[in-house]
Amino acid sequence: MTGLNRRHLLTGTAAIGAAAALAPLWPTRATAAVPAAGAQAPGFYRYKVGSFECTSINDGVATFPMPDAFVTNVSKTEALAAAQAAYMPDGMVRVPFNPQLINTGSKLVLIDAGNGAAAFEPSKGAVGRTLQNLAAAGVDPKTIDAVVISHLHPDHTNGIRAADGSLAFPNAEIMVPAKDWEFWMSDANAAKAESNPMLKGYFANVRKVYAGIESKVTRYDWGKEVAPGITAVAAPGHTPGHTAFAVASGASKVLLQSDVTNIPEFFLRNPDWHVVFDIDPDMAQATRHKFYDMAAAEKATVVGFHFSFPSIGHVEKDGAGYRLVPVTWTPVL
Amino acid sequence: MTGLNRRHLLTGTAAIGAAAALAPLWPTRATAAVPAAGAQAPGFYRYKVGSFECTSINDGVATFPMPDAFVTNVSKTEALAAAQAAYMPDGMVRVPFNPQLINTGSKLVLIDAGNGAAAFEPSKGAVGRTLQNLAAAGVDPKTIDAVVISHLHPDHTNGIRAADGSLAFPNAEIMVPAKDWEFWMSDANAAKAESNPMLKGYFANVRKVYAGIESKVTRYDWGKEVAPGITAVAAPGHTPGHTAFAVASGASKVLLQSDVTNIPEFFLRNPDWHVVFDIDPDMAQATRHKFYDMAAAEKATVVGFHFSFPSIGHVEKDGAGYRLVPVTWTPVL
Repeated sequence: MTGLNRRHLLTGTAAIGAAAALAPLWPTRATAAVPAAGAQAPGFYRYKVGSFECTSINDGVATFPMPDAFVTNVSKTEALAAAQAAYMPDGMVRVPFNPQLINTGSKLVLIDAGNGAAAFEPSKGAVGRTLQNLAAAGVDPKTIDAVVISHLHPDHTNGIRAADGSLAFPNAEIMVPAKDWEFWMSDANAAKAESNPMLKGYFANVRKVYAGIESKVTRYDWGKEVAPGITAVAAPGHTPGHTAFAVASGASKVLLQSDVTNIPEFFLRNPDWHVVFDIDPDMAQATRHKFYDMAAAEKATVVGFHFSFPSIGHVEKDGAGYRLVPVTWTPVL
Repeated sequence: MTGLNRRHLLTGTAAIGAAAALAPLWPTRATAAVPAAGAQAPGFYRYKVGSFECTSINDGVATFPMPDAFVTNVSKTEALAAAQAAYMPDGMVRVPFNPQLINTGSKLVLIDAGNGAAAFEPSKGAVGRTLQNLAAAGVDPKTIDAVVISHLHPDHTNGIRAADGSLAFPNAEIMVPAKDWEFWMSDANAAKAESNPMLKGYFANVRKVYAGIESKVTRYDWGKEVAPGITAVAAPGHTPGHTAFAVASGASKVLLQSDVTNIPEFFLRNPDWHVVFDIDPDMAQATRHKFYDMAAAEKATVVGFHFSFPSIGHVEKDGAGYRLVPVTWTPVL
């Protein structure tokens, strides 16, 4: 155990000094230094659900200074402590985004579309990567049959537009929750939101993103399939029409939770914390408990839009809250 | 909350039945069904340590029936319960393997080489993927300057040979821990191991893998650098020369723990459990506590050969044991 002390483990300085005084252990090689790659691996990951082939697509990770009221019902100090406990960069909060692609064998369905090219100025380049990661996965966006939006927040819906404003998935039916469409397209609701800059922006965003394509949009209802084997599950509160999905094939099922929680480090561990984006935080909290109590009891596989890529795990009860157990990365399907 | 009940969440049968009776929500599209990709994403992941660019390389995941004494000091029933609690397939244990590639800017160093092409018959195709994943990461094996082996077990060392028996990294210096070389190359030790089929196989394997290349092998000592910025840290017990590594550049450091634990679901949560592969299990247990107490106190980033890919996280105290908090997947460096 000669080397196992803090000096060697975490600074290595003594050892480095000692080695420098000796002949180097590494001889000079003929090979030239290899330049750094400078780029991350592509962000896609496949998993099977019965005969369905699913692909988790990373739209990226936003890292931004902790807003004053990111969690509306605890202090900023408490939120910062939770971020620090989750090893986020000092003073920052980090939010991943992960749409899911489902190939049912007859239909290619994208659940949520990510931030799109223009969003999240502070994290430019780190989000809006859905098209790039679909390409890395060998998926032509023209082959996608349906884009099913879980709710009409920008990070889920803006990716239906490419950088030039054209439709990113030109042959896809665009499906939105009927209750969310009704809520966000209501001029009366928009007028009420005038005093809240965030909400005002969201109302404007929905109108901008869907301008001119309203007739292409199909509105779906809870309790029905949006595609064969993919059932819309009511999960309201985050938004009035916020929807989770049960994906079932043969004896296998997974739950796409969408935004039942935002980041699990905050809202799975503390299910009674309210994220600033919730339209009805008390209802979102009730949905959260009901959803996770059920998922934990059933040992269901849960996919979270805001979980760390590949964003798949199991949820377990942990005291008054829950914990996420990520799946083991599997190299073969 | 109309849809949020077990029937919809986890079977979806009622909803499926209802939908079938209605006109389908998805119109028939002109696009043809897209065939399944049938392959997983490549298993590599980059992370920076100061100016060093590191790449976690997934050699694969072995899944095999729980051996009678995989954990030598608890019952098979207890081991099976731990596997089940970690959502491993029924009756099976699952072990990932992850070599690390480090580009220091002047040297390209591979820490451990994986199982090689021929190993682990029950998981054929699911392990021995290091060369394939290096290729996916754009790394030419001829450019690797050094392969540093943490200890001389087959899953760490056999990958120095390609499928045809040639050297997989033809221009690399091969560096092994002096104490492990001494232990495994001792004919006296090999003779003592004759009665233990597993150990007997390991002694034979080392001789086979290094046959004819003994003179190419450099033996390294603890407390010294094996390459600039990469210090060998004594972590004995698992094998007599078992080595961890401190990788340091600028103000940044990570700890490559090698096999301080085998799978964290068993031996991080239960640091006093002994894996069957330990040569000196009591010393391995002492090393484990010392290593993790220090890593937890320092909030060090720990990379584990047998952690789930990308195999990087933080270790925290958790009752009498420890827990692993995997890092958030980051899409940009």
